[in-house]
Order: sequence, then C-alpha cells, then structure tokens
Amino acid sequence: MERAVNEIQYEVADGIATITLHRPDKLNAFTHVMRGELIEAFDAADADDEVRVVIVTGAGRGFCAGADLSHGAGTFDHAAGDERARARWESGEVDGVPRDGGGTVALRIAASRKPVIGAINGAAVGVGVTMTLPMDVRIAASSARFGFVFARRGIIPEAASTWFLPRVVGISQAMEWVATGRIFSAEEALSGRLVSRVVPDEELLPAARTLAREIADNTSGVSVAVARQLLWGMLGADDPWEAHRLDSLGMNRLGAMADAAEGVSAFLEKRPARFPLSPSADFPEFVPRWPSRPGGT
Amino acid sequence: MERAVNEIQYEVADGIATITLHRPDKLNAFTHVMRGELIEAFDAADADDEVRVVIVTGAGRGFCAGADLSHGAGTFDHAAGDERARARWESGEVDGVPRDGGGTVALRIAASRKPVIGAINGAAVGVGVTMTLPMDVRIAASSARFGFVFARRGIIPEAASTWFLPRVVGISQAMEWVATGRIFSAEEALSGRLVSRVVPDEELLPAARTLAREIADNTSGVSVAVARQLLWGMLGADDPWEAHRLDSLGMNRLGAMADAAEGVSAFLEKRPARFPLSPSADFPEFVPRWPSRPGGT
Amino acid sequence: MERAVNEIQYEVADGIATITLHRPDKLNAFTHVMRGELIEAFDAADADDEVRVVIVTGAGRGFCAGADLSHGAGTFDHAAGDERARARWESGEVDGVPRDGGGTVALRIAASRKPVIGAINGAAVGVGVTMTLPMDVRIAASSARFGFVFARRGIIPEAASTWFLPRVVGISQAMEWVATGRIFSAEEALSGRLVSRVVPDEELLPAARTLAREIADNTSGVSVAVARQLLWGMLGADDPWEAHRLDSLGMNRLGAMADAAEGVSAFLEKRPARFPLSPSADFPEFVPRWPSRPGGT
Repeated sequence: MERAVNEIQYEVADGIATITLHRPDKLNAFTHVMRGELIEAFDAADADDEVRVVIVTGAGRGFCAGADLSHGAGTFDHAAGDERARARWESGEVDGVPRDGGGTVALRIAASRKPVIGAINGAAVGVGVTMTLPMDVRIAASSARFGFVFARRGIIPEAASTWFLPRVVGISQAMEWVATGRIFSAEEALSGRLVSRVVPDEELLPAARTLAREIADNTSGVSVAVARQLLWGMLGADDPWEAHRLDSLGMNRLGAMADAAEGVSAFLEKRPARFPLSPSADFPEFVPRWPSRPGGT
Repeated sequence: MERAVNEIQYEVADGIATITLHRPDKLNAFTHVMRGELIEAFDAADADDEVRVVIVTGAGRGFCAGADLSHGAGTFDHAAGDERARARWESGEVDGVPRDGGGTVALRIAASRKPVIGAINGAAVGVGVTMTLPMDVRIAASSARFGFVFARRGIIPEAASTWFLPRVVGISQAMEWVATGRIFSAEEALSGRLVSRVVPDEELLPAARTLAREIADNTSGVSVAVARQLLWGMLGADDPWEAHRLDSLGMNRLGAMADAAEGVSAFLEKRPARFPLSPSADFPEFVPRWPSRPGGT
Repeated sequence: MERAVNEIQYEVADGIATITLHRPDKLNAFTHVMRGELIEAFDAADADDEVRVVIVTGAGRGFCAGADLSHGAGTFDHAAGDERARARWESGEVDGVPRDGGGTVALRIAASRKPVIGAINGAAVGVGVTMTLPMDVRIAASSARFGFVFARRGIIPEAASTWFLPRVVGISQAMEWVATGRIFSAEEALSGRLVSRVVPDEELLPAARTLAREIADNTSGVSVAVARQLLWGMLGADDPWEAHRLDSLGMNRLGAMADAAEGVSAFLEKRPARFPLSPSADFPEFVPRWPSRPGGT
C-alpha cells in the first residue's frame, strides 16, 4: 500500500509502516505540507490493523534539517510572513494564538496506538529532532547529527519539546543541549541517551526493521496499544495508585479476552502465538486518551 | 527470627530482613499465597525496629518467573477462573473491579519505611520484575534474565509498572522493553539502568548484604525512613516548593531530635554514631503517607 | 565588576559571572551569611544583561563541605541554637516554621534566568551538593568528592533535594546515595549521571568557561532565559499540551522579535549572530514564573 502524498512517502509492508520524509534536495526541511501529511500518515497507520509498528526515516543524506528557512528573516514571524509562511500556523488555535506546527505533529505521534521507531539517517536539527521525542525508540546512523538549535535562531524549543526532552534524556542533558544550541554527533546522542543505539549507516534501516519485527512477530497489537497509552500517560500521574486503578481494569478486561488465552496457550505449548484481536476494533474503552487536552476536548 | 510462612522465607539477622521467594521447583512463580505473604513480610519489617534494610531474593535458580500459569489459558480471566485463580484478585476492589494482585505488592513495597534491595538471582519475568520496581536498588547476578513479557501474553504491564518503570529507566527504554516483550540479559538490564550492578552469581547475596550493612551501620533509621517517603513522594510533586515546605518542617523537627545531636557529635568526634531513636515510635507525623490513595483513604 | 561581599566572591568578565564560595579555611562550609550572599549574587546576575552564564565554584581545595558544624550537637536545632545559629533559619516562614536555608538558595538558583554551571573542585557534601542540583550542568574535577550525608547526621536531605535529586539522577541512584549517606568519587558521580563530565583538576575552570563561552557567543539571551524557565517548569506539567500551549505562544511572540530575524539571517549568511534584545527588558510576559509558589505568591 502507498498513499498519494507530496513531501513524505508512506509504505506498508509486512506489518510495518515506513514514513519517509521526502524533500531530499532540501535535507527534508519541514513545511506546512509535510506537517499535514505526517498527521495523515499517523491517522492511516492507526486505522490500519495490518500496521503493527511505524518507522520514520528521511530520504537522502538528511533526516530533517528543521524548519524550511526559505522565507528568510521573517520565517518565524506569523504576522509578517507571506501566505505560505502564515499557513504553517493555521492549524487550529490555542490560547488565542495559532498552534505551533511542530507541536501538532508531536502530539499526534504521542497519541499513536502503534509503537514508533525513529531511524535517524542524517541531520536531525530543530523540529527535525524535536519531532522524534514522542517516538518510542530512536536509532541513529553513525553519520547522524543533532541540534536543539533554537537559541541560536532567537526562538525557543517547540513541538512540546520542553515537556518531552527532559523526560527522555533528563533535565541536565536537556539544558546543556538547549542552552548551547550546539550540533552534536551520534556518539554524543548515545551517551546522552537521546538514541538507544548507533549503527553504521547501511545498517540503519535493517536495524529498525529487526526491532519492528521483534514487536510485530511476537506481541498482541491490542496489548501494545494499551501499554503505549498507559506508559506515556502515567508520566503525568502524581501517584502509582492511578496506574494501579487502570491496570486492575486492564488486567480484568484483557485477561478475559482472546489474546490473553492465546498468549498463555502459545507460551505453554511452546509455539508462536497468533493473536486474534483487532487493535482498532477491540481497543478497550477504559484507556484514557493521551495526551489529554486541557479542558477535556 | 523466622516466620511461619509457606511460599516465602523471612529471616532477620544483624539488622537485615531477607525475604526469599520460595517455590524453587516453580522458579518461584507468583501466586495468591505468595502475594499475601509478601505483604505480611513488609508489614513485619516495618514494625520491627531491629530491621534496618530489607533484601528480596529468590530460592534456587530463578528469582520469580512471573504469574503461575498452571491454570492455562484462563489464568488471567477473573470470571472464568476456578476458585483459586479467582482468589488471586479478591484482595479489595478498586473502581468496581478486583485489584491487580501484583499491584497490591508493589504499592506495599513502595510504602516501606525500610530501604529495599532486590538481589535478582535468576529469571525475573512479568510480575517477577515489575514487583522489583518500587525497590530502591536492584543488583543482578550475571545469570539473571529479565522480561516485561506482558504483550507476548496478550495482557498489559501490571503492578503499577506503567507508573514505576518510566521513572526508573526512562520512557524510551521502558517502551522498548514493553513493546517487544523480549527476554534480556543482566548486561542489557545494566546498560538500560534497570539494575545498578551486575556481579558474579556467587557474589550476589554478599554484595546485597554489604550494601545493606553500609546503610544499617552508618545511618539513622528515622532519617532514612523519612527520606525514603519524601524522595519517592516528591516524584509526584509539580514543583520543588512542596519539597521545600516539607524539608523545612523536617529539618526543624529532626534537627531538634536526639539522632541529629548524636550524628553531629559523632562526626565531630570522629567516632561511629549510635542513633538512639526508634524508627517506629519516633517517625514524625508531618511526613505525608506515600503512596497516597486517591480519595484520601 | 566585583561586589563587596564576605563569604563569596562575585566577578563578571566577558559575559560570565563567576561566583566563588570563599571560606577556604573551612572548606567553604555553608553559613547564614553565605546563604544571603548567594541569593544576592543570583539577583545581580539576573539584573545584569552583561551576564549570560553563571559559574559556581569553590575557593581552595573544597567546593562546599556542607553546613558549618561549629555549633556542635545543636547545629540543626533551631530552638536551642544561639543567635547566629537561629539566624540561619530566619529567612521567611513556610507552614509556620522557619524556611530551610539551603532551600532558599536552591529555589533562587532554580529561578535564575541565566544558565548555571557548577564547577565542582573538591568536597561537595550535604548542602554543598544539594545546592548544585538546580544548576543546569555540573562538571567535576577528578579530585571532587560528593556525599548526601544527611542520614549519617540524623537529619534529612534538604534544599528541596527530595524533588531535584530524583529528576537529575533517577530515583534508584538517588535512593542509594541518600540511604547510605556515603562519600563517593567523581567517577561514581559521573557513572550515576550527577555530573556530565570529570576533568583533571587544573582543567576544571577552563572546561566550565569553554562551555559558558559556547552559550554566550552563539545564543540569544532571551531565548535561553525563556527556554530555561520552560524546561524546568514543564517537569511539573502532567501533559505535553501545557508545553504546546506555551511554545505556541512563545514561537509567535519570539518569532516576531528582533533576535529571531537576526538568528535566521546570520545562519543564512553564514556569519556569527549579534542578538539585539535585552534579556532583562525584553523577557516576554507570557512565561510563567518558575518555581511557582503554592498559593500563587
């Protein structure tokens, strides 16, 4: 399956959806068009039971070089930009201002029911790196480069990265990268725990696919979808009692469903499990939607 | 001191309570009986001023292989289970469903006034690993194996681990282990920060006891008990002001008590301290109970 | 610029304020006088647009050996202390008790608009280490030593460290250091992620200054100030939506200001940026004050 899109590619094969940022002549710089297509791609992946895992990578030698700066000095000025620049912000409103475009993508990735693997093949700078923070696992090619460069451009970290980054790498590492705005190597990303692994460039997609296969071949899609919502969601819970309440509900509900019977039987019979449930149709209603929107909408 | 129990052993010697999961022919698989005995053992350790530290380990070649699956496909189905299976859940109710058994143990360990060291001697899988997350330190034998296998059984991470795991190892490592459900080595557990150290098998209990002695021989039991409640409890505080309020109270209260006088005097006199206070009788009332239950009960 | 102070030194040169704890014959032990002077120094740094980064270090062979224990057994007893000891606490009240002195410093550092680098040159024990936790980056000399020794003195971790420490190093490492109260090496601090780097003693200040220069020479002071408030502040937000709301506001506001135009232009023209805005006068009003005080004051 392929979708007719413009600045990304979206393919599904063997249970894995691969989203490829696709403006290779621009190091896949982020635009309003790409923003919308990314959101649609994650909507498609969630709706498609064939998709068990999503991989995000970049075409050519970059992952995503950040916001497209072809509008020059006015790039980040909503009011002064031309129509196309302004359109970047016109994606709903929050608190009386247009919503940050990177944030709409980050929150959509956060809400994904499928686990998301970032396969970072080259420069991941600005929104090019902040969009990867709500992904579950990030693997880097050895030639990848990273940069939270916002303070060098006179702006601030966006895409809700002020929330995500300290939770992924810790507050001290987050502040060092944000305060300096430095470009750093895959090795520094690894030692700072931004990525879980660094592999030679040519092994990047194979490594991402092997991890995706490990999920797709062995687990219940409903289980993974529920677990993903709960783990990310519980980052905001003040107390483990909320988790206890939800996992009591979850163990009771899922424990009586067909995937649990199959999972235990397969384990006892020492054979691969074939989980019958549908992640879309059988997703249990007790799971709170995450990230929840202030005001409940 | 020993207690008459069935599926665990509980011994106190030299200030250290050692709880040994004890169904060695079943790799110490978790049952309703073990659940109740673990809670009673932590109650006993908190009530006994002789106990300064708790060590939890497993008998034989496993730590805890997870839920006992001898009920087969219906293991996790509360309604369909036979009486013994059903009994596992009959430990109170939350939100109209029986409470998850692993969670009752995890929340009891979280509430412990004594620091808890997990000495993980072999397979720690499912509830066998989630029950260790509210412990303060985990040390692994080199032959230990770990697995958050829930998605491979069609269920979800329990024992409030959706809350604990991301706080112990970070959200990205947590999601990789939960989404794959893979079994992993002690070395992977170390590099992912699930355990603080890996030691040769025969050095596991000596290493745990050396750490326990370091606590028992040098510190005030009241100080450690209060600090344990505050550090874990402040994980849920939005702001350091709450910590400042509590530690202002704590420094004023404990600073005027006998352990502070002895601690400073011993330091100035370059001699070991002998702290006079009783962790049970002298525990100050200003410390909020943690984990607190929603609704205040 | 130098300020007339007593137990610290404060110097500004080339955009860097260096605060030196200065009681070298006492290993810079913490007193009420030092407490007040530290707070004033951070006030001065925030008010001075020339200052882009703050470095904190110690004079002589220690960083800060902790509370001055020259009052002996009554050191931490507010009521029994002599006037000077009592004065340590007389810095406002919280919840009917005098505020912990270390906490007043920690909360002031947390509120800093300038990034703060701890250059830890020797013993950092008790409040000597807890005061460094709200700093953004900690670098250690190889001869530095650390200790959360509170439980060995019969008191509890102060300076809001029950909130900060688990966020900096994780709950398990925090509990091990707090429960044992042990003194540990720079290498252990590095492996436990308390410090980002260990350097030979004579390279400590040069390393801190190189990092400070990286910030001062390349970034917008307004951008860094806003980012610092948001990253630390979002540690307490339950949900990335709050970050999305704030960074939508921030991108709209800062994107229309002069530093963003200069930052993008300089990047496109491949020249160093010269940011025109003033961190004090141009700090945008939408940024919530952090740490916020309960009750809103």
